[in-house]
Amino acid sequence: MDIPALADGVLAGERRALARAITLVESGRADHRAQAADLLAACAVPGREALRLGLSGTPGVGKSTFIEAFGMMLVDAGLRVAVLAVDPSSTRTGGSILGDKTRMERLARAPGAYIRPSPSQTHLGGIARRTREAVSLCEAAGFDVVLIETVGVGQSETVVAEVSDVFVLLLAPGGGDELQGVKRGIMEAADLILINKADGAMVAAAERTRADYAGALRLMRRRAQDPQGFPKALCVSALDGAGLAAAWDEMRALADWRRAEGHWQDRRAAQARHWFEEEVRQGLVALLRSDAGARARMADLGRAVAEGRTAPAAAAAEVVARFRTAAGG
Amino acid sequence: MDIPALADGVLAGERRALARAITLVESGRADHRAQAADLLAACAVPGREALRLGLSGTPGVGKSTFIEAFGMMLVDAGLRVAVLAVDPSSTRTGGSILGDKTRMERLARAPGAYIRPSPSQTHLGGIARRTREAVSLCEAAGFDVVLIETVGVGQSETVVAEVSDVFVLLLAPGGGDELQGVKRGIMEAADLILINKADGAMVAAAERTRADYAGALRLMRRRAQDPQGFPKALCVSALDGAGLAAAWDEMRALADWRRAEGHWQDRRAAQARHWFEEEVRQGLVALLRSDAGARARMADLGRAVAEGRTAPAAAAAEVVARFRTAAGG
Repeated sequence: MDIPALADGVLAGERRALARAITLVESGRADHRAQAADLLAACAVPGREALRLGLSGTPGVGKSTFIEAFGMMLVDAGLRVAVLAVDPSSTRTGGSILGDKTRMERLARAPGAYIRPSPSQTHLGGIARRTREAVSLCEAAGFDVVLIETVGVGQSETVVAEVSDVFVLLLAPGGGDELQGVKRGIMEAADLILINKADGAMVAAAERTRADYAGALRLMRRRAQDPQGFPKALCVSALDGAGLAAAWDEMRALADWRRAEGHWQDRRAAQARHWFEEEVRQGLVALLRSDAGARARMADLGRAVAEGRTAPAAAAAEVVARFRTAAGG
Repeated sequence: MDIPALADGVLAGERRALARAITLVESGRADHRAQAADLLAACAVPGREALRLGLSGTPGVGKSTFIEAFGMMLVDAGLRVAVLAVDPSSTRTGGSILGDKTRMERLARAPGAYIRPSPSQTHLGGIARRTREAVSLCEAAGFDVVLIETVGVGQSETVVAEVSDVFVLLLAPGGGDELQGVKRGIMEAADLILINKADGAMVAAAERTRADYAGALRLMRRRAQDPQGFPKALCVSALDGAGLAAAWDEMRALADWRRAEGHWQDRRAAQARHWFEEEVRQGLVALLRSDAGARARMADLGRAVAEGRTAPAAAAAEVVARFRTAAGG
C-alpha cells in the first residue's frame, strides 16, 4: 500500500482515501498495524482540529433521527461533519454498512458529511484504538465536527467519553423506568443531556424528564472542566427540529469555555496519556499471553483467585515472575 | 517473624496478632511481601466470611459519629465489628492513630470492636492491596462485619466499592450545593444512601435531600445484582440513633438477597479476578519501570503523546518492544 499517497488523499479530504485509511487502522494484522502507524504519523498535521462530539443513546431514543437532523443542520451551516459508529453489537447484523447509511438517508447523501459504519471488530481494546485513530483521520481530512456515536453496549460509552471533547447523552421522555434508565457511569460522563422526542403529545413528558435529570445533575459535584451551569439537560425534537440549534449553541459555548480556560488541551492531553498507558498495559499483557505456559497458568490462577484459594497479589506475583523467567530476564 | 504463630494468633481472634498482621501486609518491603503472602495463605480458612461494608462520606457529614453509633449498635447486638480506614489524605496528619481512635471513643473501647487507623502509605495500588488484605485478615480473625471507611480522596472510593459486599454513601442534609454534591462515579456505586443528621431542626431538610437522591437513583438503571427497590435512600441520625436499625435491616436484606440469588459469590469472584488482573498489570508495568532506559523513554513518549506529536499506539509499541529487547526475549 502506498502510504504517502494515502496520507495525501486523506489530507486533501478525499472520501475514498479516508475510507481506505479507516479500514487500514481497523485491521489487526501486524503489517497493517505498522502501515497504520506510518499513516497516522503522516496525517498528524498541526492545526487540524475538529470538535469531537461523543453521543450516547440506547435504541429507541431516536438516535439516528437525531444525528440525521442535527448533522443536516450543521452541514447546512457550512460545516463538514463525520459520523463514526462505535457499536460492538453491530457484529450481530454483520457490521451493517447498509443499515448505518439507510438510517440517515439525507446525511449520507450530503456532500459535507461522511458516515462511517460500525466495524465488525468486537474486542474492546480494538474498538478504543480504532475509534481514536479513525477520529484522528477524520480530523486530518478537515472535518469540523466528528460525531462519535455509541449505543452503549459494554464499555463502549466509556471509550466514547474518553475520546470526546464534549459528551452528549440522548434520552427519550419517560425516564425512571428500567429500560430507559441511564446505565450507571454514564450520567457522570455527560456534559449535556438531551431529551429527544419533545414534540406533539410528548412535550410535557419530555419537560418532566428533563427536570428530573436536571435535578439529578445538580446533586453531582461540578468538575473543574465545567463552567457554571454545566452539565445541562435540554429538550429537543429531532422530528421538528426544536431545540437543535440551542443544543448546538450549548455545545459550542462549553467547547469555547474549555478552550479559553485551557481545559480543552488539558483534556486531550490527559486522554492521550491515558490511551498511551492503556496501550502499554495491553501490550505487556499481550506479550505475557504470547507465552502458552504463562497463558495457561494465568487462567488457572484466575480461577483459584475467583474461588478464594489464592490471594490476588500472590497469584499475580507468580505470573509476573514466570514472565520474567520466560523472557530470559 | 514466626508466620505460622502469627496466623494462629489471627485465627484465634487475638487483636495484637491481627494488628501485627495488618502492619505486615501494609509493608512494601520485598521480604515482608513474601511473608505477607505466606500469612494470607495460612489465614485463608474456608467458612470465615464477614459482611464487608464499604462506607464513604466526605468530612462534615458526621462519619465518625455514625460509625461510633452504628458500630456500637452492632456490638450491642453481639456482633464483632472491625473498622478499617482507607484515607490517602491521612498522611497529612501522620496516620493519626490517636485521631482514628479518639473520634470513636466508645467503639474503640468495646471488646467486640477493632479499629484500625489509616496507614501512612499513599500509593493507590498499595492502598488497594493493603485494604483487600487487611479485610481478609479481619475475616480470618472472625469478625462478623468489616466496615471499610473512606473520605473519598482520589480513587479511594472506587477501591472501597471494589472490596465491599455492600457499599453505603453517607451524606448530610442540604444536597445540591457543590461542597455537598456527590463526587461523580460514587452515586452509581452506592447500594444505600444515608442522609445523616436527620434530627432536631434538620429533619425536614434531611427528608428533602433524601427525596432528591431517591429521585436521582430512580433515573439509573437497575443492576442485575440489585433487588427491586435498591439502591435506596434513607434518613438516619447518628446523634439520636434514629434510622440506624432500619439502615442495618436494609443492608442485611440486600446481603441476604444477593447471597440467595448467587450474586454475593459472583461479586466476590469478579472482585478477586479484577484485583488479580490489576496486580498482573501493575507487576508488568513495575517490571518495565525497573529498567531505567525504558522508564526514561516512557516519560519522553508520554509527553510526546500528550502534545500530539506521537500516536498512543505507536508510542506504546515502542515501549513494549524495548522491554522485550531489554528482557532478552
